[in-house]
Amino acid sequence: MKNIIPLFLALAATVSVQAKIVTQTIEYKQGDATLEGYLAYDDATTTARPGVLVVHQWLGLTDYEKHRAEQLAVLGYVAFCADIYGKGIRPKDTSEAGVQATKYKSDRALLRLRVNAGLDELKQNPLVDKSRVAAIGYCFGGTTVIELARSGADLQGIVSFHGGLDSPTPADGKNIKCKVLICHGADDPFEKPADLAAFEDEMRQANVDWVLIKYGGAVHSFTQPMAGNDNSKGAAYNERADRRSWAAMKMFFAGIFHD
Amino acid sequence: MKNIIPLFLALAATVSVQAKIVTQTIEYKQGDATLEGYLAYDDATTTARPGVLVVHQWLGLTDYEKHRAEQLAVLGYVAFCADIYGKGIRPKDTSEAGVQATKYKSDRALLRLRVNAGLDELKQNPLVDKSRVAAIGYCFGGTTVIELARSGADLQGIVSFHGGLDSPTPADGKNIKCKVLICHGADDPFEKPADLAAFEDEMRQANVDWVLIKYGGAVHSFTQPMAGNDNSKGAAYNERADRRSWAAMKMFFAGIFHD
Repeated sequence: MKNIIPLFLALAATVSVQAKIVTQTIEYKQGDATLEGYLAYDDATTTARPGVLVVHQWLGLTDYEKHRAEQLAVLGYVAFCADIYGKGIRPKDTSEAGVQATKYKSDRALLRLRVNAGLDELKQNPLVDKSRVAAIGYCFGGTTVIELARSGADLQGIVSFHGGLDSPTPADGKNIKCKVLICHGADDPFEKPADLAAFEDEMRQANVDWVLIKYGGAVHSFTQPMAGNDNSKGAAYNERADRRSWAAMKMFFAGIFHD
Repeated sequence: MKNIIPLFLALAATVSVQAKIVTQTIEYKQGDATLEGYLAYDDATTTARPGVLVVHQWLGLTDYEKHRAEQLAVLGYVAFCADIYGKGIRPKDTSEAGVQATKYKSDRALLRLRVNAGLDELKQNPLVDKSRVAAIGYCFGGTTVIELARSGADLQGIVSFHGGLDSPTPADGKNIKCKVLICHGADDPFEKPADLAAFEDEMRQANVDWVLIKYGGAVHSFTQPMAGNDNSKGAAYNERADRRSWAAMKMFFAGIFHD
């Protein structure tokens, strides 16, 4: 059962005059849990195209991720924002966000089920070319897309933006079938050097095709304007790193989808 | 005094039919030393354009760097291969290369003089827009372009490909005026984790605009086909990392030259 709310957005000047980004709120299931995601695509054509799953940060699915999905739709992808926490579970503050994020970070099996449900929802969309699918995620969502890869999911690539890289089961790196791009703030105080080193070793041992980019001067949340501009808080927006990491993602997609 | 040998190259199909890459061997001086560099540019136009200095690996200026200069010329840049060792000093083997490289790596002041002489030679070319200049380097040349930046040279950016990042004078990071891109093989056994950490700290303390990319599965010399394909030797070609780092360089140039 789907609850579809079509919504037509006016588009910026960078988009061709034919482009019309359609968005829909979509209910889907994982086990007994009801999840509520968000789809965005350009309906100027009906050609099957690559799909990109977008996974939210610890506050849950917000306008931020929806905007990223719309940006991806403008680039020509079918984008679907997964909902990891469940319909109606939208933390009001960082305290509630911490409870939710911790629940899933300490139950990686459940986290993998939730994110795979989102991937399945994206792939069953008839506009999506199932052989060309990727996932991106922010902070908690970065961790989540790495777990998606570690689950052995069938997709072409993942991109983590300032995601936590730690793993309770590093041997699961051997399940990774897709290419991996990690966009990391070089001054992120929440990512311990030991976790970074362990992640690199996990990739190395599993012979994964991976790239890690460190952005100088960037702390946690560097892609998120709502994080403010005070690096001393450990999480802050960094326009330069945001722009560069988005460009790196586009180049990564060009490699996995269009080569 | 210049000894100019014009040479006209046939071009690949990717180049516009008007393009004609001109190359010249150019003598220039640093103090009493005579150096012999190599210039490449497209003479289809006479418009001033960005200039890129190319610094050789430990074997000295070879056909490898000349080919990179020609690739840069095809991209629309004036490219100049610096000669750090001096005219006629072209190591025949790794033993001779080690002697030369060690001489300059252990005399950073002389290394800076030599590379700045190359930069000056590039900038005095009337085809070069002096406000848009960068330097790239491979292995020993990567170290050298970082030293160029540390010398306080006036240029917009440097790119190091598998260059050594260590510095005997990390406080010199404060002299860096340009943007820095480091392309690094994640499995490079010649780059100690402590040197990598010290480099990052140097950039951090000096508030440099820097990005470091780690390429999974790549060891030292990953851009150089002549290094062979055996990672266990510690230096080997990696087609994927070569292609990606070249694309990252192009994106970096787009940012510093064309924004």
